[in-house]
Amino acid sequence: VALVAQVTVVGTGLIGTSTALALVKCGVVVRLTDRDPAALEHAVRLGAGGPLTGEDGPADLVVLAVPPAAVAPVLRQAQQARMGYHYTDVAGVKAPIVEAARRLGCDLSTFVPGHPMAGGEQPGPGAARADLFVGRAWALCPERVTSIRSVEVVRAVIELVGAVACDLTAEAHDAAAALISHLPHVVSSALAARLSDADPIALRLAGNGIRDVTRVAAGDVALWLDVLAHNAGPVTAAIEDLIEDLRGAVRDLRAGGSEALASVLRRGNDGRCRLLSESARPDDHHGAAR
Amino acid sequence: VALVAQVTVVGTGLIGTSTALALVKCGVVVRLTDRDPAALEHAVRLGAGGPLTGEDGPADLVVLAVPPAAVAPVLRQAQQARMGYHYTDVAGVKAPIVEAARRLGCDLSTFVPGHPMAGGEQPGPGAARADLFVGRAWALCPERVTSIRSVEVVRAVIELVGAVACDLTAEAHDAAAALISHLPHVVSSALAARLSDADPIALRLAGNGIRDVTRVAAGDVALWLDVLAHNAGPVTAAIEDLIEDLRGAVRDLRAGGSEALASVLRRGNDGRCRLLSESARPDDHHGAAR
Repeated sequence: VALVAQVTVVGTGLIGTSTALALVKCGVVVRLTDRDPAALEHAVRLGAGGPLTGEDGPADLVVLAVPPAAVAPVLRQAQQARMGYHYTDVAGVKAPIVEAARRLGCDLSTFVPGHPMAGGEQPGPGAARADLFVGRAWALCPERVTSIRSVEVVRAVIELVGAVACDLTAEAHDAAAALISHLPHVVSSALAARLSDADPIALRLAGNGIRDVTRVAAGDVALWLDVLAHNAGPVTAAIEDLIEDLRGAVRDLRAGGSEALASVLRRGNDGRCRLLSESARPDDHHGAAR
Repeated sequence: VALVAQVTVVGTGLIGTSTALALVKCGVVVRLTDRDPAALEHAVRLGAGGPLTGEDGPADLVVLAVPPAAVAPVLRQAQQARMGYHYTDVAGVKAPIVEAARRLGCDLSTFVPGHPMAGGEQPGPGAARADLFVGRAWALCPERVTSIRSVEVVRAVIELVGAVACDLTAEAHDAAAALISHLPHVVSSALAARLSDADPIALRLAGNGIRDVTRVAAGDVALWLDVLAHNAGPVTAAIEDLIEDLRGAVRDLRAGGSEALASVLRRGNDGRCRLLSESARPDDHHGAAR
């Protein structure tokens, strides 16, 4: 018997609907719910599953694809309604969510905090893709109290959608996410912000470099404010380290020196090399899966 | 008679060799020279043209594809040797180069300062592509003393390689380049620098966002130090504006506020929109040219 026959997805945004589409493709029965009836209807129309009804029994897994601030209260509600046997979420921060769930009295033994390392600038079900997670890392942050069975069920779902499960503590996740996702988002936005009142001639000259560097700046403002506020400590520390490097660059450029600036550029070369050699290479996996 | 029958390219790096390859494809006779014999031989082997000899008469155009600091002295030398009738360069800064050329006593009437808005992280002739400039903007910054004939010749070459000429003053170019190229390079490097000593787990979680944001950080350190030093004023101002936005974000994250942070994210959305709607859309052109 398969570990996962029926899944309920709460929140039919980009991540929730993409998860649902991938699971439907694998023959899983998927039920959907969203507080926005239009988003729910859109996801149903896309073939991501049927709407959740009062008749549906508990799902094998409930995927909470809601913004960080909503995860703990929605988990509490879902557990009280016996919506499923096991639960996971997909929010970009983990430790504060676990803490909030504990404070609200959620059952942490059936909740596996998770975070797929995939996304896109366009929010909503319309941007969803069944192959969004293929070859991507999917962080899992089980606590000591998390049941082994719950972790097994979530792992099975991660495998079904084609992602690669990656276990780490909630704290390690949040520090890593600050570095590879939250800091880049803030900085990319600050770069793109310079273009909001730039001379049109500058935009006409723009090439691929500035396009790549500012791509993530198109992300949803409200969602990102929520994510950043939930990971304020690690993000603040990362921004301040970066400001220190930028200050060194400014000092050098003013004084005609190059020591600090050269160090930033050289460490930039190194960091880029490490990223390409040690990260999951989602494109390779994607290519192989085609 | 075609405006451009013979072109000499000085410097067979990525930009020089790509220009040469594109011109050879159009039937232009191309002569190459580089102070590094290995780079010259590599470019010749790629079919980018023949090596320049003492027998070659003046070219219709001499393209100086050398680093910023070398442009003025090499221009002076080339003009003294009567290497061509008209001259242009491809360096990422313009006003300081014009100033240096003036100080060295170059003939500014035959020199059209230029800058193709295309490139890549891999330097050298091996990374060159005949289609590197297709659909890309190519900035031209003629001075009052520049002859109309020289501008016409350079425009003809820009058209031959498939780029889109974009006229502006050297000062406007340097301000624009600071915003769309130099600032993003420094910031992308500072972001990638955070990964040079990051926990390997962070790299394993890395997705497409951080990959895009740090792509240009792989650029050649020595070349970029030269470019940045030549545009220190505008780059410093741009970095300081960006630091101001980042400081606002830190203040908000510390105090639990969101006004400054939301402003950065919103202006980031706006800037990204403007970039996509007002820039040259190189990919569309590229697609159309296939």
